[in-house]
Amino acid sequence: MYAVTVSDHFMIAHSFRGTLFGPAQALHGATYAVEAELRRPALDANGVVCDIGRAMTALREVLAAFDYRNLDAEPDFAGINTTTEFLAAEIHRRLAARAAAGDLGPDTAGRLVALKVTLRESPRAWASFEGPIAAAA
Amino acid sequence: MYAVTVSDHFMIAHSFRGTLFGPAQALHGATYAVEAELRRPALDANGVVCDIGRAMTALREVLAAFDYRNLDAEPDFAGINTTTEFLAAEIHRRLAARAAAGDLGPDTAGRLVALKVTLRESPRAWASFEGPIAAAA
Amino acid sequence: MYAVTVSDHFMIAHSFRGTLFGPAQALHGATYAVEAELRRPALDANGVVCDIGRAMTALREVLAAFDYRNLDAEPDFAGINTTTEFLAAEIHRRLAARAAAGDLGPDTAGRLVALKVTLRESPRAWASFEGPIAAAA
Amino acid sequence: MYAVTVSDHFMIAHSFRGTLFGPAQALHGATYAVEAELRRPALDANGVVCDIGRAMTALREVLAAFDYRNLDAEPDFAGINTTTEFLAAEIHRRLAARAAAGDLGPDTAGRLVALKVTLRESPRAWASFEGPIAAAA
Amino acid sequence: MYAVTVSDHFMIAHSFRGTLFGPAQALHGATYAVEAELRRPALDANGVVCDIGRAMTALREVLAAFDYRNLDAEPDFAGINTTTEFLAAEIHRRLAARAAAGDLGPDTAGRLVALKVTLRESPRAWASFEGPIAAAA
Amino acid sequence: MYAVTVSDHFMIAHSFRGTLFGPAQALHGATYAVEAELRRPALDANGVVCDIGRAMTALREVLAAFDYRNLDAEPDFAGINTTTEFLAAEIHRRLAARAAAGDLGPDTAGRLVALKVTLRESPRAWASFEGPIAAAA
Repeated sequence: MYAVTVSDHFMIAHSFRGTLFGPAQALHGATYAVEAELRRPALDANGVVCDIGRAMTALREVLAAFDYRNLDAEPDFAGINTTTEFLAAEIHRRLAARAAAGDLGPDTAGRLVALKVTLRESPRAWASFEGPIAAAA
Repeated sequence: MYAVTVSDHFMIAHSFRGTLFGPAQALHGATYAVEAELRRPALDANGVVCDIGRAMTALREVLAAFDYRNLDAEPDFAGINTTTEFLAAEIHRRLAARAAAGDLGPDTAGRLVALKVTLRESPRAWASFEGPIAAAA
Repeated sequence: MYAVTVSDHFMIAHSFRGTLFGPAQALHGATYAVEAELRRPALDANGVVCDIGRAMTALREVLAAFDYRNLDAEPDFAGINTTTEFLAAEIHRRLAARAAAGDLGPDTAGRLVALKVTLRESPRAWASFEGPIAAAA
Repeated sequence: MYAVTVSDHFMIAHSFRGTLFGPAQALHGATYAVEAELRRPALDANGVVCDIGRAMTALREVLAAFDYRNLDAEPDFAGINTTTEFLAAEIHRRLAARAAAGDLGPDTAGRLVALKVTLRESPRAWASFEGPIAAAA
Repeated sequence: MYAVTVSDHFMIAHSFRGTLFGPAQALHGATYAVEAELRRPALDANGVVCDIGRAMTALREVLAAFDYRNLDAEPDFAGINTTTEFLAAEIHRRLAARAAAGDLGPDTAGRLVALKVTLRESPRAWASFEGPIAAAA
Repeated sequence: MYAVTVSDHFMIAHSFRGTLFGPAQALHGATYAVEAELRRPALDANGVVCDIGRAMTALREVLAAFDYRNLDAEPDFAGINTTTEFLAAEIHRRLAARAAAGDLGPDTAGRLVALKVTLRESPRAWASFEGPIAAAA
């Protein structure tokens, strides 16, 4: 199996509900360093998994919906704890949809089989969500 | 699949038996930077894989049994080469037992399915052990 | 010149005033990975620059006043852009005062001559403030 | 499953054919930081996955065929885009053949089951190829 | 003293003349991870050393003259060994000229006093050039 | 000022005397990741600070006197706490002597002016010693 990973980062504010979170129940924030790993069983005619430029652009566009935001004020996330795990899955959902639609380069629709999204929140902790890239409906 | 990783480190002395080890047959030591990746198919009601604070505490308590020790003098390891691979598996066994017992947060017993423990011994080499978190008996 | 560096991190929310900041004028946040480098011309009788355990504790205590906070709501920072540069200098001021007072170990008062505080806000940008450790009045 | 990873790097020149590559169609180059992860279900009598010294030597010997070369001028790669993905698979093929032949230490032939080769081309992008280590014919 | 660092990277081909360089006399290449550290004694009215967005843009524009090039074919470098050290100094010269001209934000001309440019060529070696930012003529 | 840095690592056992050291009074060990930064005001005729291959070799030879040793048993260090700070200064002394003697390449004797040696003992702490390279007697 081949894989290509592109990385970027975004910076948000948020707070968590639940005594489990201790001091993180207060409004605080995070820099998330993001890695998106795209997997494909065979290379295309150019010898690549996908167009790495398009992959970086697609990741940036997905992250732009989060970057420099207070996630507590985003309607999409009303009533949701925007934990690192949740955000990894949400970014996976959005980037996988683009990958399924063929946005990551010629000859990629239906050929990129899986995506792993990792969000590093500090030098000591990170989270990821890994799952298939479903065929676009 | 979701995953959360917490990291820490410990510092030990040890030596190895066997000509394979060359100069490492002499008493020397290592700093091991440790990463423990916990996997779970779905998030809990708080939106997390586990309580990250408890995960860090549990990892620290497991590592405390090794930290600042000469492993050659530990009864647990008599007659054993405490290689990076061996230590990764040993830390996996101890931390997985805690995870299986529900020590990593409410609603985690039986729900954390796998653990990967990585030990970085130098900028040029590292080892890991990955396996299921078995249900506590 | 000898130097010892200890590292830690903290997570905050804030916003900036001024068109220069573009999208960072909105409430967002950051994880700051912090490095505090303490300098001393000669080692003490133990062979160290300072007690590294005490240095880590002092840094943690200084950072605790920022960690998991919305800096926009902190009276100390009313009317101030809490930029990475500003925070580096503020942490320098607070940690240097502790160093000058001898909080970093026996035989350190008056002997630690300089401190550099670096705050990494993302994989692509960081800031620092470097200056002398003034003798305590 | 146990795994041991060794790392090294190499520096090459090359160019790509295909408009997909944009400015990378011109002759340029890269430093590839390489990680080779070897997997084995059980440790040998010494307590290791393989002889780490031999693994480092084998990886270096494989990389020596690429290091300080213009890949456009290598007969092996005539008509091929030597992308990061392609090189990861090529290094996998060569190192896996050595592993299958027992070159990575006593008692390794037939026991190392899989290899993942990762090539980091920049702080923002990397690629890997992962596959079984086939038994030597 | 305050400092802000921005980072980027570029990828080039080149060769060296001189037996000192051994195998690097052949055409090969490198990824250079670049860090540009800008120093200023006091912050501006916004609380920053400079406009970090402009600093990243200026660094990118300076690197664009090198990126995806064969430096052996660049008229600017005819007869020159484009070593890591040389390139660090050349990027310093070009970026310092922009800094001196006030390109890095309002209120920066004449106030940014020094620049350190570091080029990382591999995980095992890097080079830097550090010097004043001279006032623009 | 130009600088070139080469890196390597070594692994040792040791213990410390003094209640300041707490649990580190027991025999333990460390991996030290080492960086040696060599400074020179002007490049040589080849365009380099020194022969980077020779610098790496010299650093390796200096570290070989420590690597895979129990420093408590080394006559050179009898009665000495081999702290990270002490080891940084000791490696500085030995490598600076080689640099002063012209071991780091043609045209280097008397031209390399300063050396900074950094030892990283864990992801959370490191130490350095920085000083001039004195002319060889």
